[in-house]
Parts: sequence; structure tokens; C-alpha cells
Amino acid sequence: MQKPDPLIFSGERFRAVYHLSGSPDEARARAHDICLEQTVEFPEDLIGRADIRDQVFGRIEEFRTLAPNRHEAVISYAPEISGGELTQLLNVLFGNISLQPGIRLVDFELPESMLQDFPGPRFGAQGLRELTGIARRPLLCTALKPMGLSPSELADMAYSFALGGMDMIKDDHGLADQSFCPFDERVRLCAQAVNRANEKTGGKCLYFPNVTASADAIMDRAALAESVGAGGVVISPGLTGLDAMKRIADAAISLPILSHPAFQGAFTVSSQAGIAHGVMYAKFSRLAGADACIFPSFGGRFSFSENECRDVARAARKPMHGIKAILTAPAGGMTLKRVPELIEFYGHDVILLVGGDLHRHGSDLAENCRRFVRLVDKA
Amino acid sequence: MQKPDPLIFSGERFRAVYHLSGSPDEARARAHDICLEQTVEFPEDLIGRADIRDQVFGRIEEFRTLAPNRHEAVISYAPEISGGELTQLLNVLFGNISLQPGIRLVDFELPESMLQDFPGPRFGAQGLRELTGIARRPLLCTALKPMGLSPSELADMAYSFALGGMDMIKDDHGLADQSFCPFDERVRLCAQAVNRANEKTGGKCLYFPNVTASADAIMDRAALAESVGAGGVVISPGLTGLDAMKRIADAAISLPILSHPAFQGAFTVSSQAGIAHGVMYAKFSRLAGADACIFPSFGGRFSFSENECRDVARAARKPMHGIKAILTAPAGGMTLKRVPELIEFYGHDVILLVGGDLHRHGSDLAENCRRFVRLVDKA
Repeated sequence: MQKPDPLIFSGERFRAVYHLSGSPDEARARAHDICLEQTVEFPEDLIGRADIRDQVFGRIEEFRTLAPNRHEAVISYAPEISGGELTQLLNVLFGNISLQPGIRLVDFELPESMLQDFPGPRFGAQGLRELTGIARRPLLCTALKPMGLSPSELADMAYSFALGGMDMIKDDHGLADQSFCPFDERVRLCAQAVNRANEKTGGKCLYFPNVTASADAIMDRAALAESVGAGGVVISPGLTGLDAMKRIADAAISLPILSHPAFQGAFTVSSQAGIAHGVMYAKFSRLAGADACIFPSFGGRFSFSENECRDVARAARKPMHGIKAILTAPAGGMTLKRVPELIEFYGHDVILLVGGDLHRHGSDLAENCRRFVRLVDKA
Repeated sequence: MQKPDPLIFSGERFRAVYHLSGSPDEARARAHDICLEQTVEFPEDLIGRADIRDQVFGRIEEFRTLAPNRHEAVISYAPEISGGELTQLLNVLFGNISLQPGIRLVDFELPESMLQDFPGPRFGAQGLRELTGIARRPLLCTALKPMGLSPSELADMAYSFALGGMDMIKDDHGLADQSFCPFDERVRLCAQAVNRANEKTGGKCLYFPNVTASADAIMDRAALAESVGAGGVVISPGLTGLDAMKRIADAAISLPILSHPAFQGAFTVSSQAGIAHGVMYAKFSRLAGADACIFPSFGGRFSFSENECRDVARAARKPMHGIKAILTAPAGGMTLKRVPELIEFYGHDVILLVGGDLHRHGSDLAENCRRFVRLVDKA
């Protein structure tokens, strides 16, 4: 066999930040293992070629001890090994090492050159404000539920919500294409209802149907949503794969995307492993083209801490070269009573998503929405 | 508004088994919450309709205490709410509750009627044995690596492996479509090399290229793999979404699928949350059409316990109505020295996957493979 041409890489690197458990020596050894496990996955001593060692291996760029049993390693990788694909980028960042305890991916940074393959959201926070016509205050959002209602019942509900001044109305993420609530019929009726209410109010409420679906159905549903006048789509990338979301964001379908965290929770459940909240719920979704991301806020039915929620909010807007900042939608049992507290904590650049609690204040849903709007205007 | 027609469901249910932390009262309350969170996601007291309460709500079928702080709840759901889609089935089993601590999905059972939408693997364990012509002993598998080699170098390696008697040769799961190793060229050359070796040996070694890719590329790659004579495909459903694998299994592409666990590890890292090993690495993949599944075995570079590995092996063959049993491929730093121990533990119905260690026994890779075959024949 003739001698192979040596690899010629650009020399640029992307960086991943990991938190590692153990003694300093154990953590250093683990950081070294990551450099191999995530790239060549091969015994180091059996690789003689200098070009592979220099360019394909991960490289420890920084290492520091944060606490007696907690260390931070910054490891860089060659963009070439991600091949310009989101699946392989995720694989390099956390593929095999997701299977090892004591390693947490807490951040990553891509050089600007990689962003040609990852353009991010089409609209972002600013685009959503333009679409809804709300310049400064938080956007107000609610959900169509409970599952079991028919398309026309949900459309009636959507009409009331839009009439009452909601900026965004989303399908509950459990509404798919069930026989008792078929996707096509629901989306047509709800989009019509919201647009009818918009004509009456002069508002620009956007309806976001849930297009989370089988790989071969998701694009068709998003296209149908657009064709019948929906204002956006909901996707749960934990169920579809992040790349399915990217595919919609990159496609000719010109609708904003609202990311939902279903099935992703196991990534953040342990503070010693998995992926940090900001990366999991905001940065990955933003990279894959979401314009806003839902996550379970502190103080509701879920158990994220204030710090974890701050991490999500920060990751949604931290500069990422040309990738637009996105909005976060803290959710999961939010109530009207907590509106002032939520605005105090998250600021005005946020989507306030109140679901079930909007049904707790009398049977006139439009009036309950108006109350929600007044609470936000006052805060 | 006219009174809506009541929901008329079949009355069948599918069942999920959860392990719950806390006191018995806390765990019972949590089981009750799951029944709502995974279905209507709405305050119970605001749902008056009896048909929704009876049919859409999850239902606690069994509850028992396993240990002072550990309880098992069996909760049933109506097949109708999964809408026949894998994404929504996963959402009902574990979508929102993945975001809550102290809940672990340990098993699930579907009624036979649901399997029309989930036919499972095309080949299964028996089909893989027929394709490879190995009736009884473990199948022997190795991987093409390290990343950084060119397609022709990998093809030379594949030729030696096939000549030496491997039954399956897989791409390392990090080989995607990188500029230094393009998918098309690699797969053409490696498939040719393996088939050339097969002609020489009379064997039936199968080459499994990695088709894990962007949502819009995966089907094309699988089709190309088939057209150039590859023997199967590798997919990492943690990266692509499980449904992308199902799409390949259900398609007209007649190649067996080897599932790889990259990016799935966070689901099993905590014993109090996430998803049990058997469900995550075997049962989900099997449901989505994998014919074999790779997982990190005890005693290698990873840290799964013997019990966790047993759980995977069991889930691969436990009866699931008409869904075929599949093979497991314990991996992650396996060595020739451990072959007898692995066969003792996993039995003969297994794929033994040895990667880097096959390169440790001299530079004649074909001869190293023959040694691997002899070790297995002897065991």
C-alpha cells in the first residue's frame, strides 16, 4: 500500500467545556480520555501517525479545579471531524462520553467558520417581536388543551385566547395526529379561528401547532401549517432528534419554531453528568434553529432551581457570532399570580407561558387573557 | 357551541412501569400526577368530562413498595393517545416526566393491536444468523477505525478483517461524511473489499457503514449503502431520533440495522431517574427496528454493572408479541482475553465486538481475527 497523504486541516478548533468529578489527577486522566474517546476511539499507543495525533485527537486547552471534587476542562476539536453535520457535532461533543459517569458538558463554542453549516434561527427574539408586533413587554403565550377536546372545541378556545390578547397560542405538546383530534383538521380550524380573532382585534396573535412527528411526516405537517395560515410550529427535539428541527428551520417554510423540552429531562437530572441546562434547553435548540424555547421554570410543577433557569435564559442570548438570540418561555405550572415575580426574575425579554391557570379565573377565557395582559402591562 | 361527541376508545391500554422515589404517600401522589402530566397536562379539577377522565387520563393499575424509598407503579394509557406514532408514544411514556426527578421508566408493554404501527426489526437475531451463515456460535464483529484514515486505508483494513473471519465489520460510529473520509467513497471501497474477501473465503461477512446523519441525508446514505453492496447499516438513534431508525427499518431498504448508544448515556446515568438500561439500549431500538444493539459492557472502558448489562440482554429477547428478538453487542473496550468470560456471561446468542484490541496482537490483522475466531470456537 502506498503511503497515505497526510491530513491537512484548517487549524481552527471548536471548544467544549466539561465539568469532571474526582481528584485532580483522576479528572486530568479523564480529560485526556475524552480527547480519544470522542475522536479516534482507539488505543493511543497504537496510533503512530503524527497528523492524526495532532489534528484528529481532542486537545486539552485549559484545566482548572473548581472545588475539591470538581474540575473544568476545556477541550478543543477540529471542525473537520464534525463534517458540517449536527448529528456528528453532537456526537463529538457528547456521544460516547454520555455513557460515562462524572462528565458534564457545560458549554461549547464554535468558530465563526462553522456557522455556515449552522445558521441558527431564522427569526430569533427580534423576529418574533416583529411578527407579533410587541416591541418591548414580555410576549404572552398559552396552550390549547386538554387532550381529548375536538378540533372545533380547541379552535373555539384558540379564538377566545386570541380575542383576549395572547401573542402566541401553542398546541399542547401532546397533541399529535390522534384519531379524535386529527392534525389537519385541528390546524386548519385553529389557524382560521386565530386569524379571525386577529381581524377583529387588529392584533397579530400567532398560532403554533405541534408538528412533532415521525421523521417522514414532520416536514409535511410544517408545510400544511404554513399553507393554512398558522403562525409558527412547536417541535420537541428530544423526540424527533435535533436535526429534524434544523431541517424545518433551514427549509423554505417561513414559520418561527418553538422548541419543547419533552423527553430531554434525563440529560439535566444529575448535576455530575449529562448536559447543563443552558446548553440542553437553549443553546442546542438555538443552534438547530429554534426561535424560542420552552423550559420548566422554578416554582411550578417541576424542580429546576433559579440558577438552572438563569443558565437557560443566559444561553438563549449569549453572543454566538451571527446566530440570533432567541426568547425563552419559562413554563410548567406558571400562574397569573406569579407574573410580577417572573418578570422580575426573567426581565421583559421573555415569553410568559400560562396554561391551565388561565382556566381558573372564570369561564370567560378571553376575559382571563385580558387580565393576564393587564398584569403584564402593570409589571 | 353544540355538545361534543363523547370519545369512544377501544378500551385497550398499553402499560408503563415506573420506579418512584420518596415515601409511599409521596410516590402514590407522584403516580397520580404522572397520569395527568403525560396525558391532559391540565388541572384535574378543571376537567369535568367523564369521557376524558375515563379514557384519556393515565390509570394506576398497580402500585407496590419495593424498598423503604422505592416504589413501583404500573400506569396504563389508551393506545389512541399515541396516535400510532413513535414520537408520541415516547412522549406519553416519558416526555414531560423526564423533567422531574425521582421517576424512572423501567419497562413498558404494548398490546398486540399496537404492533401494526410498530412492526419492529425486519431481520432480528435469527435473520442476522441467516445472513451471516452462523447458526450457533456468537457472531464476531469489529470496527473500522481510527478516524483520520482514508477510505482506501479503511477498505484495506476491512479486507483483512473479512479475510480473517469476522462476521460483521462496522464503521466506527464517528465516521460520518468528513472531507478526509467521504461517505460515498468509503462505503463503496469498504463494501467492495469485504465482498472481495467473501469471494475468497466463501464467507458471508457483512459490512455495516454508519449512516447516522442529518435527517435529510440518512435515507440517501442507507440507499447508497445498499446499492454498493454493504451488508447493513449503523445508526445512533440518540443522535438522529429513534424514528429516523424506524424509517429505515420500514423502508424498502433491505439491510439489517445495528443500533449504537452514542448520546443516550444520560438517560441511564442515575438509578433514580431516566430510563432503565434494558429499555433504553435494547427495547426502544428493537421497537424502532434495530436488528442488533451495541451497548457498553461491564469490564471495559465504561461503567455499566453486570446487572445493567443483563437487563439489556434480557430486553433484547423478552417476548413482545410478534416483534422479533434481536442480538446485543456488548462493547466498549472488549479484549480477546475476555472472550471466554463474555461468552460465559452473555451466552452464545450475542455479537462479540472487539475493536482496538484486535490491533494489539501483531500487524497481521487477518491473523488476529483468526485468533479471535479460534477463541470463540474453543469457548
